[in-house]
Amino acid sequence: MGTVTSPAADLVITGCTALVHDEHEGIAFVEDTAIVVREGVIESVGPAEETAVVATVERIDARGQIAVPGLINCHTHSPMVALRGIAEDMPAEEWFNDVIWPVESNLTAEDVELGARLACAEMIRGGVTCFADHYFSMDTVAAVVAETGLRAHLGEAFFSSQGPEGREKSLEFALRHRGAAGGRITTALAPHAPYTVDDVDLAATAELAREHGLPVHLHASESRDQTDNSLARHGVTPIEVLERTGLLGLEEGVLIAHGTGIVDSDLPVLERATGPVAVASAPRGYLKFAWPTTPVRALRRIGVPVGLATDGAASNNSLDVWESMALTALVQKSAEGDPRWLTARQALHHATLQSARAVGLGERVGSLAPGRRADIVLVDLTGPHTQPVHDLAATLVHSARSSDVRTTIVDGRVLMRDRELLTVDVPATVRELDERLAALTDRSHGRRIQEYDKPPE
Amino acid sequence: MGTVTSPAADLVITGCTALVHDEHEGIAFVEDTAIVVREGVIESVGPAEETAVVATVERIDARGQIAVPGLINCHTHSPMVALRGIAEDMPAEEWFNDVIWPVESNLTAEDVELGARLACAEMIRGGVTCFADHYFSMDTVAAVVAETGLRAHLGEAFFSSQGPEGREKSLEFALRHRGAAGGRITTALAPHAPYTVDDVDLAATAELAREHGLPVHLHASESRDQTDNSLARHGVTPIEVLERTGLLGLEEGVLIAHGTGIVDSDLPVLERATGPVAVASAPRGYLKFAWPTTPVRALRRIGVPVGLATDGAASNNSLDVWESMALTALVQKSAEGDPRWLTARQALHHATLQSARAVGLGERVGSLAPGRRADIVLVDLTGPHTQPVHDLAATLVHSARSSDVRTTIVDGRVLMRDRELLTVDVPATVRELDERLAALTDRSHGRRIQEYDKPPE
Repeated sequence: MGTVTSPAADLVITGCTALVHDEHEGIAFVEDTAIVVREGVIESVGPAEETAVVATVERIDARGQIAVPGLINCHTHSPMVALRGIAEDMPAEEWFNDVIWPVESNLTAEDVELGARLACAEMIRGGVTCFADHYFSMDTVAAVVAETGLRAHLGEAFFSSQGPEGREKSLEFALRHRGAAGGRITTALAPHAPYTVDDVDLAATAELAREHGLPVHLHASESRDQTDNSLARHGVTPIEVLERTGLLGLEEGVLIAHGTGIVDSDLPVLERATGPVAVASAPRGYLKFAWPTTPVRALRRIGVPVGLATDGAASNNSLDVWESMALTALVQKSAEGDPRWLTARQALHHATLQSARAVGLGERVGSLAPGRRADIVLVDLTGPHTQPVHDLAATLVHSARSSDVRTTIVDGRVLMRDRELLTVDVPATVRELDERLAALTDRSHGRRIQEYDKPPE
Repeated sequence: MGTVTSPAADLVITGCTALVHDEHEGIAFVEDTAIVVREGVIESVGPAEETAVVATVERIDARGQIAVPGLINCHTHSPMVALRGIAEDMPAEEWFNDVIWPVESNLTAEDVELGARLACAEMIRGGVTCFADHYFSMDTVAAVVAETGLRAHLGEAFFSSQGPEGREKSLEFALRHRGAAGGRITTALAPHAPYTVDDVDLAATAELAREHGLPVHLHASESRDQTDNSLARHGVTPIEVLERTGLLGLEEGVLIAHGTGIVDSDLPVLERATGPVAVASAPRGYLKFAWPTTPVRALRRIGVPVGLATDGAASNNSLDVWESMALTALVQKSAEGDPRWLTARQALHHATLQSARAVGLGERVGSLAPGRRADIVLVDLTGPHTQPVHDLAATLVHSARSSDVRTTIVDGRVLMRDRELLTVDVPATVRELDERLAALTDRSHGRRIQEYDKPPE
């Protein structure tokens, strides 16, 4: 208390219950809290009465709401929102070979821009403040990130079929955009997957990552079939390919998308990794493709963080990370045959600190604590579907929905207030995108950008 | 067209896309449709321009929205909303014996009333127009149904531990409330389950059902453990118990909740049933308890309809039937190892006609067609998470959420308009309920209302 001598804060959020982490990273809830934000950073999280006198540019009265760290979508292809629902109820190889990869051969930068913009609108509405994107025409996605105000971890995807130019383009993108949008953009090298990028190319990518201090984000061991095919073809699993090409020894780490095909013999390989390793899990799509799910419990035992993700909307149908959080809890119980495993609090740990670590932002976001960037989401739990509250963690994970997010804040800037989007014009984006869909989805040309993994002949 | 001579319609909904069923019960969508409602009944579903001249008391402009048959929650315990989140991350036997059944020994009619009212608010907001409820103090639930405007299929639950009075009370309730609330209430006899109601009691229930033309709604074969325990104790499965006590030969049918423990040998038993049999599936809770899921594909082969359900909020955490629809599609693909099974259109068939049949209302609700009761839900698909639309069925099942329901109509009466609830005061209900929670959740007395099924010694 006492005289306030510092300049006005930028934002003060008052009266909320805050989700915080204790010293053992346990989830705790502090009632009647005020959060003070200055220059994009959380300055304090404390009793509301102590901040009543803080001068501030903006004040949000959040009584009856819960402040949680912004959700992080640890693996998506945001522009694929344009293809939401285009390939339903079919196996992965048909999805890739017969629909998605033929359609993606039509893709233009304009399609990417409109898809990414709509994706950002969806994510802001769903309480997502940061996303890890792995796609093409990523210059365009970076521009959309700058414009919409989200935080993002971006990588330009490449296949070995593109020759060394693919890798070089990915590097050029990563270096040029690193730290862009006022620091909200971080970058990664983004080889597609071990079955589309050969060992020479992966080893060269690891070398570039070391040389330039960049992380790597790729698909690996997406399904059990991919693991079996890799064993049949190369005698090693996709995870062993990552090890032998040097990708498990990067200072800035490697982010593995999916990993539902990680087998027991992969665990010691991941455990002896000399650089940070994380896995992004998008459980909805695994159910839809009838794949197994990410072995979260085994990964926990060896200390590998598992972040939450949605994959692209063409397979997942939404970018709803809140749903990924609930499904992670539900599917893990079912997969392990253990209702005590993956409690609501564990799900919240995945959604916060583990997701931040997965995208290399473990020190910057993922918790509401002084010094962290102010990526904050306010959730309204007054609806009939979230009352009464016997256990706030359970209410957040199992009863609340992404549509209960009222306010989304990134770097202290309000991107959605009371469900009104402030940085995206959805109707205009939808209108423009609709005009492009006929050309985008035409498959009469018979081309595809790549061939899906098949068992060796 | 031409001169309108009939009296004014009660409600005309214009400009929507309507989900209808073709002659083979396939899902179809008709754009720019108008729905005319008179005296609680759908009079016509046709081209918008033909109804422009129809005089009507009320007109809803639903351009850009999809009209779907109101969702049906085929098995719930609505008052258990009061216990949402009270017993998390534990096996079923602990959930029953250590928390739920001790707490339910405190239950008062006031608790039931407030829980049911909050449940009705949640269901109306989620596009549910009818629910099958199986609980205690059902007079109170019937009063809440009358007051809130929903349709309901109600049964007073009983255990054999209550003696013959339990069964008699269930009958008395069913006879007294049959056809109440202007016909919106139908009733059933409601024995709890074969492991809590003995064969003599079940056979007497079947006899009463035949005598009075009533259906029966009960839990059976909820989990594989229950099936195994029944086999060990009685040498027959719970489904065989239903057969030998006459419950599979009722003219008005039997509604089986869950059935995740239905085994292959039960299928011919169900197939030779001489009365209607249906199963209600609530997939969220099965994941949470690490149970198997309802064998929907096997039940389909033998012609048993499977309706969608949520069970009570104490296990399911929500009464979100929209989520049950999506989870049915996802979990069935995973359980059968087949991404082609349970398409979005099949999920919509479960949500509409199969759910209506499950609660004995197959001729009255479940489709938007002339002569059906006007239980209609209007869904807004203009949000960024539901655009663009390549496949309307997939958008509804996999991208839309219960929060996209804008308007809920039962028997032609609007219960929610543009997300504003018209028949429930949520804040007052929550406030009153909160005051009762300490007394309701006290377990210091050491009592419980019943003992959960355990393997025989």
